[in-house]
Amino acid sequence: MSDKRVTRASREDALKALESLARQLTEQVLRGEGPALEVPVRTLANVIWDPRERLLKLGPKKLRRDFLDMGEARKFMQTVLMLSLIARAIREGDYPTIRDLYYAGKHTIEYIDEYNKLRREETWDTQKESDSVIQDIEVATGFLREHMGILHDTKGKMVGKIVIRSGNDVIDCSKMGDGAYSIPPNPDSLEILSLDADYVLVIEKDAIFNRLNKERFWEKHRCILITGKGQPDRSTRRMVRRLWEEHDLPVYVLTDADPYGFYIYSVYRSGSITLGYESERLATPGARFLGLTVTDIYDYKIPRNFIIKAKERDVKRAKELLNYPWFKQSKEWVRQLELFLEKQEKVEIEALSGYGFKFLTERYIPEKLSAGKWIE
Amino acid sequence: MSDKRVTRASREDALKALESLARQLTEQVLRGEGPALEVPVRTLANVIWDPRERLLKLGPKKLRRDFLDMGEARKFMQTVLMLSLIARAIREGDYPTIRDLYYAGKHTIEYIDEYNKLRREETWDTQKESDSVIQDIEVATGFLREHMGILHDTKGKMVGKIVIRSGNDVIDCSKMGDGAYSIPPNPDSLEILSLDADYVLVIEKDAIFNRLNKERFWEKHRCILITGKGQPDRSTRRMVRRLWEEHDLPVYVLTDADPYGFYIYSVYRSGSITLGYESERLATPGARFLGLTVTDIYDYKIPRNFIIKAKERDVKRAKELLNYPWFKQSKEWVRQLELFLEKQEKVEIEALSGYGFKFLTERYIPEKLSAGKWIE
Repeated sequence: MSDKRVTRASREDALKALESLARQLTEQVLRGEGPALEVPVRTLANVIWDPRERLLKLGPKKLRRDFLDMGEARKFMQTVLMLSLIARAIREGDYPTIRDLYYAGKHTIEYIDEYNKLRREETWDTQKESDSVIQDIEVATGFLREHMGILHDTKGKMVGKIVIRSGNDVIDCSKMGDGAYSIPPNPDSLEILSLDADYVLVIEKDAIFNRLNKERFWEKHRCILITGKGQPDRSTRRMVRRLWEEHDLPVYVLTDADPYGFYIYSVYRSGSITLGYESERLATPGARFLGLTVTDIYDYKIPRNFIIKAKERDVKRAKELLNYPWFKQSKEWVRQLELFLEKQEKVEIEALSGYGFKFLTERYIPEKLSAGKWIE
Repeated sequence: MSDKRVTRASREDALKALESLARQLTEQVLRGEGPALEVPVRTLANVIWDPRERLLKLGPKKLRRDFLDMGEARKFMQTVLMLSLIARAIREGDYPTIRDLYYAGKHTIEYIDEYNKLRREETWDTQKESDSVIQDIEVATGFLREHMGILHDTKGKMVGKIVIRSGNDVIDCSKMGDGAYSIPPNPDSLEILSLDADYVLVIEKDAIFNRLNKERFWEKHRCILITGKGQPDRSTRRMVRRLWEEHDLPVYVLTDADPYGFYIYSVYRSGSITLGYESERLATPGARFLGLTVTDIYDYKIPRNFIIKAKERDVKRAKELLNYPWFKQSKEWVRQLELFLEKQEKVEIEALSGYGFKFLTERYIPEKLSAGKWIE
């Protein structure tokens, strides 16, 4: 496992990387050179699929952001501005959100142009611009914004026999009653003190998570239950990755039987293509899809009046998935997606409740697991 | 306070109410009468504003759901079906979601019509129909679906010096590290063992909650931090209500300075007009709006380039709010909303980061609280 392990990093490590980047720029200036940054290209053209590690990665292409290049000067200024904002936040013990950084850096620059006219320019106009620079800094330093203590919305929650330390607190996630532990923005800051589970069960839907928690499924079946409430946020993905990577736990994903559910699985497993650079730390290449599959609809004889006709966007999404390398290379996934495209039918996980409220937890999941009926 | 207190109810209490309803029906049949249910009308026409309790309530109108009335027979069947599903779930220790109940009850009824023709009818076609029957059962019995152990999506999280018991677990919400306690679907099942706080601070945005938590704001300022992540779910609202009602804690709500933020405050405070019947248990009539207000935009001299032009839907929403009794009767709210309609400008809470990342927590909130500058 050691080759795929990504070390957890502290905020101080991130600060050092930011300072080193800034030092390079200063040295260039002191040497009388125009300062320039090298940033790996984040566009689709430079995202490559690594079949050995089963991960999306950034390719070798780098762009040179040269201060003295008119086309790059604005981006250069933005990058250095963001660099200084983040470094200052770390030094002063602040934990800004990405939106805080947008406002903290937004101001109007006034300058006199070559015709002696006063001109005004915003440091950035939209948060899209400041977010993009944060991403550049992430790929240039190799640290996630989470490592830098930049906060964002979090959706994930977790229960099970796992004891963690966060700051001075020791949290036992098997003692949350009917509630759960809300996963913090930076899961790397968590120290896993003990873990007593055989696998991780990732559940698409929050309400289903609540039901399995209420039934204490995690206790009876010795697992860690996690939900990212639909499309998962970065923190949930990182938490799942850590459990798989550092503790060798198999990871199973449970969603509706529809292309949106399959896509959610895909994000846990391999990341999103447009944010390929995150996958090295956030994706879980070993994640397995437990269900519901397209064939489940017919194998479990889901009543016809429970079946939902696929929409245009489901069909479109299924065709996209067939082009992703991690689906294309899996004979079973191709079979599932082609069956979906043929039948154009989908089913929600709650449809299993037609067989009784306990069917999901007492039959479906245990049977699938013991028969090894998951898809990779 | 005792007059506004609503007793917490157990699942067994809810079951008794369901059984009593069913017993009435059986007795009607045994007496040779056509069975009929009386259900309070949930439409807008029967939602009234109680100025003394500052709450939306259902008015006195009831509808009679008569099995032998052709126009009501289907709804009657649906209500009795749902009643039996919920009662069975409680007896068998199941915790279905509202969607589980939809599927568990959905089936095709075959019958021979008066022309001797085989006809088929679905018990319900959409989840909207089964959800509507659940709401009827809530108002007919006076119990929330949460009391019946019916689960749903939950969004809320909480930190601060509050120790609660949930089942056999004792949870100290001041020991969650950078994470938080994810509020369970039925907050009434929580026993509050101890509480050491001066007020509740409800935060609209999850990322801002994470920042205040990271700064341990709740510890320095002796408060309970809660977020419902935008438009709050029922569980978050019920938790806030309990802290206000049972522990006399003042409740302050912090949102963006825009009509959507004001509306979120309104939902915590008085509930939504279309679900007026929930307010008696879920609303917090004493909730105060701390900010950001429209006047804050000008009082705090928010830079012009941080101000966002209001959209059509913001203006529409502001006009709606001006018609809500709890806004209309507040001179200060009328002033704020009229100023908004005049200027048509809004601002996000993160805009305060233009004055430094600590401005919100070290200046804005403490100053507003100590000067009593909230709106009711």
